[in-house]
Amino acid sequence: MDTETEAPRGGEMVESPFLKQLVAVIRAEDTHGQWDNKTDIDLLEEFIITKEERREMPIIGDPEPEVIWRLTRFYDAVGLLVEKRSGCMATQMQNMHHEGFGRVVLIAGRLVVVSKHLRDVHRFGFETWAKLAQAGEKLVDDAVKLIEEFPEAAKA
Amino acid sequence: MDTETEAPRGGEMVESPFLKQLVAVIRAEDTHGQWDNKTDIDLLEEFIITKEERREMPIIGDPEPEVIWRLTRFYDAVGLLVEKRSGCMATQMQNMHHEGFGRVVLIAGRLVVVSKHLRDVHRFGFETWAKLAQAGEKLVDDAVKLIEEFPEAAKA
Repeated sequence: MDTETEAPRGGEMVESPFLKQLVAVIRAEDTHGQWDNKTDIDLLEEFIITKEERREMPIIGDPEPEVIWRLTRFYDAVGLLVEKRSGCMATQMQNMHHEGFGRVVLIAGRLVVVSKHLRDVHRFGFETWAKLAQAGEKLVDDAVKLIEEFPEAAKA
Repeated sequence: MDTETEAPRGGEMVESPFLKQLVAVIRAEDTHGQWDNKTDIDLLEEFIITKEERREMPIIGDPEPEVIWRLTRFYDAVGLLVEKRSGCMATQMQNMHHEGFGRVVLIAGRLVVVSKHLRDVHRFGFETWAKLAQAGEKLVDDAVKLIEEFPEAAKA
């Protein structure tokens, strides 16, 4: 990134309710105000993994706790945005296997509003801000649609 | 248990499809046939915790892996019996906290057919065979009813 013509890491920043929610989730974890001086982009940049970075990441051994933390915040943000849009609170559950695959679900009442099977958890991240935002928005949209389809189960 | 008049540990054995399923689940784990000579009661007796035993069990520290194993088999058996009676396969997910509380769910399609918040996982067990059987049967019955109430979600 020595020249001004080179694209910034993660590409262009996008306006996104999901990214805003993700920042809020991360800031809520900062109980001692240690990140007060950090910008939103500072806080989110660990969610960006470029193609080059991805290639260099080993997928052997247990995923690092930081990766699990990041993944959990991502789905926390999805859950909170689902709640804002549907009124249904969604709880997260994870089954993670040591090899880096697993499953994350968000449950509202008796309805599984998000169900995601994961591979390569070691490399959880998105190439661009646009892709990060899009991935979150899509999970939220699908969850809200499912709640509209099965409102009684979501409130059971 | 020196005298014949004393009640056996776990009280009287009961006929129960759930106990049969639980035995089958445990035997399926025995890939090397090490338990071939064990009776069904031998295999199930670790699910019995008498009042006296319960009192002596510490609830400090992480639950032992054997307790988690036992708990998982219990809900595996619930899931398999739900599948036999409803045709819907249910997958187990657990969130266990170190202090011995947690949550277990069984998910069929997009429906949470069993949702159980647990406390004192350290002492997971039942006073009598009748109570063990009853606990399993009740979870199965409730799950099947829920699937009948929300069949589309269970197949989604």
